[in-house]
Amino acid sequence: MAHITLPDGMPGIRALMAFRPETALPLNQLVEVLLQGPSSLTKGERELIATYVSSLNECTFCASTHGAIAKHHLGNGDLVRQVAADPESASISPKLKALMRIAAKVQEGGRRVTEDDVAAARAEGATDVEIHDAVLIAAAFCMFNRYVDGLATWSPDDPEMYDRIGAHRARNGYLAPNNSLK
Amino acid sequence: MAHITLPDGMPGIRALMAFRPETALPLNQLVEVLLQGPSSLTKGERELIATYVSSLNECTFCASTHGAIAKHHLGNGDLVRQVAADPESASISPKLKALMRIAAKVQEGGRRVTEDDVAAARAEGATDVEIHDAVLIAAAFCMFNRYVDGLATWSPDDPEMYDRIGAHRARNGYLAPNNSLK
Repeated sequence: MAHITLPDGMPGIRALMAFRPETALPLNQLVEVLLQGPSSLTKGERELIATYVSSLNECTFCASTHGAIAKHHLGNGDLVRQVAADPESASISPKLKALMRIAAKVQEGGRRVTEDDVAAARAEGATDVEIHDAVLIAAAFCMFNRYVDGLATWSPDDPEMYDRIGAHRARNGYLAPNNSLK
Repeated sequence: MAHITLPDGMPGIRALMAFRPETALPLNQLVEVLLQGPSSLTKGERELIATYVSSLNECTFCASTHGAIAKHHLGNGDLVRQVAADPESASISPKLKALMRIAAKVQEGGRRVTEDDVAAARAEGATDVEIHDAVLIAAAFCMFNRYVDGLATWSPDDPEMYDRIGAHRARNGYLAPNNSLK
């Protein structure tokens, strides 16, 4: 049961967003810009970073939701599972692997990211904006994961539910209403 | 030196916000709602939570900046230093101490927050919205701290500079331009 009284039947962050719409608005706008906005990283790549960091933080709701969104962008659920378990051995580009290494450092703490980590990403072709966005996506999911689990929100067990959320968000983004999820 | 090429002479997150205005907008809106918006927690109390979490994350820029903002709200720099070092022995209300304990758990990880932590805050008079906001402030600073340090932004050594930022933000909030800081 959640630590505070939340609307019935809404999973994870959606219940928190219904509870406190004032903070929901900038949170949704942030994730819309980061994961759906114009970028030289594909939407699938960005959702993989979000999924991986959420897995490292052991946040079932966020890892399952963003894993499902990534699956719908990429058309490949196996790849999502590989990345969540171990990006180094997954079939992703060397550039994305280097960004995943930076994301894992950010998950531990900002000061853990070294010049060598950044140079390695740059050597694989990562731009300053891509490095910036990888750091901010990782940092943002260190927030979202703590928010969702710090208030003990409901994580559904049903994979179908995450798949439905994943299809909806991949198609409509983060500013669309949740009505279709209920 | 920062990990990416940022505008000259701008400290901490301000340089990142100038580099990437698309993400700056929702980040500033989030912190405006959380730390300056209507709340039964005072602005000073909310800035103390931000300062304490930033200290736990060893983020010099954020701890110094929000410590200075808290000082300007509270008119008491000693209290800010006490809270950053050890909220339990600081001259703050039992309710705020209980919320600080929750914030410290969130800093470690969302799953660390227990029913007992929340019951203790409620026993001191904390409402659901206050518990929600304490968790989200703590989670948000786990993002901001990682963002600022993960890209190795500039943390000025000059206490005067933080004091100037603190006075400006306490008076004008987070949506005001930075011009007065330069």
